[in-house]
Amino acid sequence: MSLIVQPINCTLKSDPKAKSSTDAMIGVLAGEMKKFSAEIAPTIRIAAHNVLPGVTSDEGPGDGWPAIRTAILAADILVFGTPIWMGQPSSVAKRVLERMDAFLDETDEAGRMPSYSKIAVCAVVGNEDGAHNVCAQVFQALNDVGWTIPPVGGCYWVGEAMGDTDFQDLKAMPRMVTKTAKMVAANASHLAALLKDNPFPG
Amino acid sequence: MSLIVQPINCTLKSDPKAKSSTDAMIGVLAGEMKKFSAEIAPTIRIAAHNVLPGVTSDEGPGDGWPAIRTAILAADILVFGTPIWMGQPSSVAKRVLERMDAFLDETDEAGRMPSYSKIAVCAVVGNEDGAHNVCAQVFQALNDVGWTIPPVGGCYWVGEAMGDTDFQDLKAMPRMVTKTAKMVAANASHLAALLKDNPFPG
Amino acid sequence: MSLIVQPINCTLKSDPKAKSSTDAMIGVLAGEMKKFSAEIAPTIRIAAHNVLPGVTSDEGPGDGWPAIRTAILAADILVFGTPIWMGQPSSVAKRVLERMDAFLDETDEAGRMPSYSKIAVCAVVGNEDGAHNVCAQVFQALNDVGWTIPPVGGCYWVGEAMGDTDFQDLKAMPRMVTKTAKMVAANASHLAALLKDNPFPG
Amino acid sequence: MSLIVQPINCTLKSDPKAKSSTDAMIGVLAGEMKKFSAEIAPTIRIAAHNVLPGVTSDEGPGDGWPAIRTAILAADILVFGTPIWMGQPSSVAKRVLERMDAFLDETDEAGRMPSYSKIAVCAVVGNEDGAHNVCAQVFQALNDVGWTIPPVGGCYWVGEAMGDTDFQDLKAMPRMVTKTAKMVAANASHLAALLKDNPFPG
Repeated sequence: MSLIVQPINCTLKSDPKAKSSTDAMIGVLAGEMKKFSAEIAPTIRIAAHNVLPGVTSDEGPGDGWPAIRTAILAADILVFGTPIWMGQPSSVAKRVLERMDAFLDETDEAGRMPSYSKIAVCAVVGNEDGAHNVCAQVFQALNDVGWTIPPVGGCYWVGEAMGDTDFQDLKAMPRMVTKTAKMVAANASHLAALLKDNPFPG
Repeated sequence: MSLIVQPINCTLKSDPKAKSSTDAMIGVLAGEMKKFSAEIAPTIRIAAHNVLPGVTSDEGPGDGWPAIRTAILAADILVFGTPIWMGQPSSVAKRVLERMDAFLDETDEAGRMPSYSKIAVCAVVGNEDGAHNVCAQVFQALNDVGWTIPPVGGCYWVGEAMGDTDFQDLKAMPRMVTKTAKMVAANASHLAALLKDNPFPG
Repeated sequence: MSLIVQPINCTLKSDPKAKSSTDAMIGVLAGEMKKFSAEIAPTIRIAAHNVLPGVTSDEGPGDGWPAIRTAILAADILVFGTPIWMGQPSSVAKRVLERMDAFLDETDEAGRMPSYSKIAVCAVVGNEDGAHNVCAQVFQALNDVGWTIPPVGGCYWVGEAMGDTDFQDLKAMPRMVTKTAKMVAANASHLAALLKDNPFPG
Repeated sequence: MSLIVQPINCTLKSDPKAKSSTDAMIGVLAGEMKKFSAEIAPTIRIAAHNVLPGVTSDEGPGDGWPAIRTAILAADILVFGTPIWMGQPSSVAKRVLERMDAFLDETDEAGRMPSYSKIAVCAVVGNEDGAHNVCAQVFQALNDVGWTIPPVGGCYWVGEAMGDTDFQDLKAMPRMVTKTAKMVAANASHLAALLKDNPFPG
């Protein structure tokens, strides 16, 4: 049985056609995940949808979150892609995390949130510095609302301090990025398959 | 000469009439600041404006940021108010910080960002836990883009772990909140006055 | 087959007989884990040993880390207990994390760190505020060096903002702490058993 | 009147003769500060002293902290130097911060901590990633206990993601590091002089 992977891209660029380094990193990770028979759903560019501020699963007319929520929860693995701004996750990434706060009140009869038995990993890029803090903030928030984090759950690239090179403009893929992507993909896939067959009992 | 204080409220509630605990904390802090002859500008509720995603000072038609930016930079002290969600600053707070990233490229002939010689403090509330991390994330980002942080720059309240009481519903103002607000106000006012008369030379 | 749980206490108090709120929280969590047939090893109070600064697995004569490292890696679940100081993990907790940095170079022929297929959870206490940031910093660091984090991987208690009550002095165990401890224990035990039988292939 | 600058180095290397990239960064920053007539005290390598765990200003016989505390408080500017390990400040840096927690109870008759009217800046180096988080954690903790943070209060260098180059081994000083060091030095010196002449009234 194939695993379903749902990548989301929390870039600040709302135009779906605007090039995104975060998309490039998601692509590297998705490429490795395919080798584990995973089916990769089309990446959802969050800023292209109208995700309203709030902490419920439906903030009313025009809210783009309910459809995104459905897509995320239909998958086995969430690839949480975000750029780094000021050493931190983007405001769009924070918006997504806040909307998942509702999971705390959406437990089933066994006390399980809708994210239980599902895997989340990070794909992070920036011109310089901040990837570890992004993973820290994102892992803590995702873990609070029920996601499982596999070992080495983050794949990232940043350039030298105070540099301004974009990941998508690199002439060659850094060897360490490819190596890390393989590890993230292998670990996420193994754990997702295990938990799909043996979900948390609650 | 009177100091001007500009509070912003990064609540997720976009309706200006919706009650906000962050407003309540801003009120406590503003009340103390008035004692130092500060003039308190009306609080800007960020979510009531259409602050577009991006890292420039004007993201085009409909962008609510340029007017807010002008108001913030007309003041001597910024009171950065934000609720805590998932132990972190709100997505609205992150949006504001990202828009200030543009300050890095807006230096004057002496290399000074528009925020130089201005003071920023935090007003933070949550049902439970997260105030220190909010201050850490906000102070680091604000400091990167030129703001000065006075000693004891954060006034906050959170309830006991995993509680659900709102600050605005407390029957009495906690003594420690009032005490801290006095310190934040005194320190911010002293430093703002000093820097107004003696700005950074760049 | 019984799971082995190894708690560590990163309190600043080096005297093993000094009472510790972190021990109290570890006790709550261990009590719940016993219900899942886990064998709880005696808590290691890190500050009572001479864990030298460094990032290798053996920093030479007198180093207390090698024995602790052996005990931790003999277990299936690590309960990482730490107090909060200034909204952050203790210096003793940071020391432990740094010593695990060596895992990155201790991979087996399949590229697996010694922590692979093992579970880590947090037990965190403080007078006030900081639990989410402690979990963020600790989860990110542990995840970097190969540990798997189950959903709802942190059990914590803090009092109201700027309070000074110790967890060990509470007259009654807060209901939410017990509820969370049950979730952490159930999730950690389920995942540890799964991974013990089906380790990451690397 | 000359300003006194006290650098501390929170490297994990306790041998004072062991070369340290953190020392190299402190040197860059101190070199710029000298241009503002500052007197630079010899760097204190914290790990070479026996700073005991605890949150008081004197943890008893053999404690190296009291002498370091005296040196720090005799200065006008603290240069807080720390390496990055796992994207975070070192355990030695955390130890220093914890010992400053005692300042909260050491206020004078006007409610001022011993750190009031003094400036703190960061000098941070790592092989890769983490500088922004180090500044966030350090600024928040220092600010809690009374230090003032000037704009652009951190000077840092890290290499490309997952790299292993040491700052002290760079063939040329990166232009951006020098530029940032000048800004940090200018801002810290201006603010320290202002506050020395016009201390916080409390």
